[in-house]
Amino acid sequence: MIMPMKMLEENLNKHVALLLKDNRILEGVLSGYDEYMNMVLEEVEENAESLTRRLGTVIIRGSNVVRIVPK
Amino acid sequence: MIMPMKMLEENLNKHVALLLKDNRILEGVLSGYDEYMNMVLEEVEENAESLTRRLGTVIIRGSNVVRIVPK
Amino acid sequence: MIMPMKMLEENLNKHVALLLKDNRILEGVLSGYDEYMNMVLEEVEENAESLTRRLGTVIIRGSNVVRIVPK
Amino acid sequence: MIMPMKMLEENLNKHVALLLKDNRILEGVLSGYDEYMNMVLEEVEENAESLTRRLGTVIIRGSNVVRIVPK
Amino acid sequence: MIMPMKMLEENLNKHVALLLKDNRILEGVLSGYDEYMNMVLEEVEENAESLTRRLGTVIIRGSNVVRIVPK
Amino acid sequence: MIMPMKMLEENLNKHVALLLKDNRILEGVLSGYDEYMNMVLEEVEENAESLTRRLGTVIIRGSNVVRIVPK
Amino acid sequence: MIMPMKMLEENLNKHVALLLKDNRILEGVLSGYDEYMNMVLEEVEENAESLTRRLGTVIIRGSNVVRIVPK
Repeated sequence: MIMPMKMLEENLNKHVALLLKDNRILEGVLSGYDEYMNMVLEEVEENAESLTRRLGTVIIRGSNVVRIVPK
Repeated sequence: MIMPMKMLEENLNKHVALLLKDNRILEGVLSGYDEYMNMVLEEVEENAESLTRRLGTVIIRGSNVVRIVPK
Repeated sequence: MIMPMKMLEENLNKHVALLLKDNRILEGVLSGYDEYMNMVLEEVEENAESLTRRLGTVIIRGSNVVRIVPK
Repeated sequence: MIMPMKMLEENLNKHVALLLKDNRILEGVLSGYDEYMNMVLEEVEENAESLTRRLGTVIIRGSNVVRIVPK
Repeated sequence: MIMPMKMLEENLNKHVALLLKDNRILEGVLSGYDEYMNMVLEEVEENAESLTRRLGTVIIRGSNVVRIVPK
Repeated sequence: MIMPMKMLEENLNKHVALLLKDNRILEGVLSGYDEYMNMVLEEVEENAESLTRRLGTVIIRGSNVVRIVPK
Repeated sequence: MIMPMKMLEENLNKHVALLLKDNRILEGVLSGYDEYMNMVLEEVEENAESLTRRLGTVIIRGSNVVRIVPK
């Protein structure tokens, strides 16, 4: 058994892809998170409505997160 | 009587299919969960809008989950 | 006066029909529930968008439930 | 001053009409409720999308309730 | 400074108009409320989709309320 | 650093414009608020769907608020 | 590991871009925030539906925030 929060911990400083409720996808290095699944991603590339943008560092509010895929 | 959380425990390391609120279906091996129904699935195959994708490991935020079907 | 949770208890191991927020209907035997109205149904038949499917055992996240009808 | 929960208590075993968020209307005898406005109705007649159905006993999850009208 | 709950108290037994999230407007005498903004209105006239109806007493679940206008 | 609640306090008895989730804009004098961002506005002018109306005093449920702009 | 709230602290008095759930973007200087991600921005320029407006100081309710990008 691996707790979801433990899984986040194991992916610290690694590449992950975040799917948000509005279908936005953020790919970047996971540099932090908290108990609400608020997250800090760095070197982010965002895909939304077939548009790609480089965003650098991003703070994401956990309530918008659908799923996280380690890369 | 079987508690829903106990039912999740019984399905640890087994195949399950997760339906999310956006109609996305994730099938994979349940390797972890917590009290909010946050979950860790492995060897995931995702179906969304008639598209199938292999995702490997996925962390799902519990608030998006509709139902879980053991396979 | 009968408390809603007591009513669930009385329907343990009996047939119920669950209406979910996405209009999905799940019919099956109620084999468990908790304080959040998370539920375990067995021998489930699901109706969604005029499609019927046999699902076996299903764990439902309570936040999706609209109403429960004992059969 | 009459507290909303007290008003529910006064309508125990009386006819009420419940409006839900999906515009569904349930009319029946209020036989129970709890602090979340989860409710038990009996002898229910449901109106949804101009369709009337007799449902017998129904357990309603409070988060779906908009308003309650004593009859 | 007047606290919102204090403002409700000052409008007890007075006419108010309630706007709900589904654009429904309920006008009536405020006879009770609680900390969640659950409310009891009496002598209610409801306007929804340009239809007016007399409803008598109504219990409203606070989570549906947008704004309250004392009349 | 100025806390959001402190900022509300500094705007007591001053003109503010409130944007709600349904795109409604309420302009008026902020005469009260609480920890949930429930608010009391006075001398309110409301704009909704390009219609302007004078509402006098208004109690707003905090969960509907998007942003507040001091005028 | 950097906690999301710590990341906000590091961006105090710096330019950030806020994306809200209704796709509104607010750019300005972050002058305050709290544990719910309620925020105070100053010298705000808002983009909504391809319209740009200068708003000065803005208080944002945290529940509407999707992501924050330091500039």
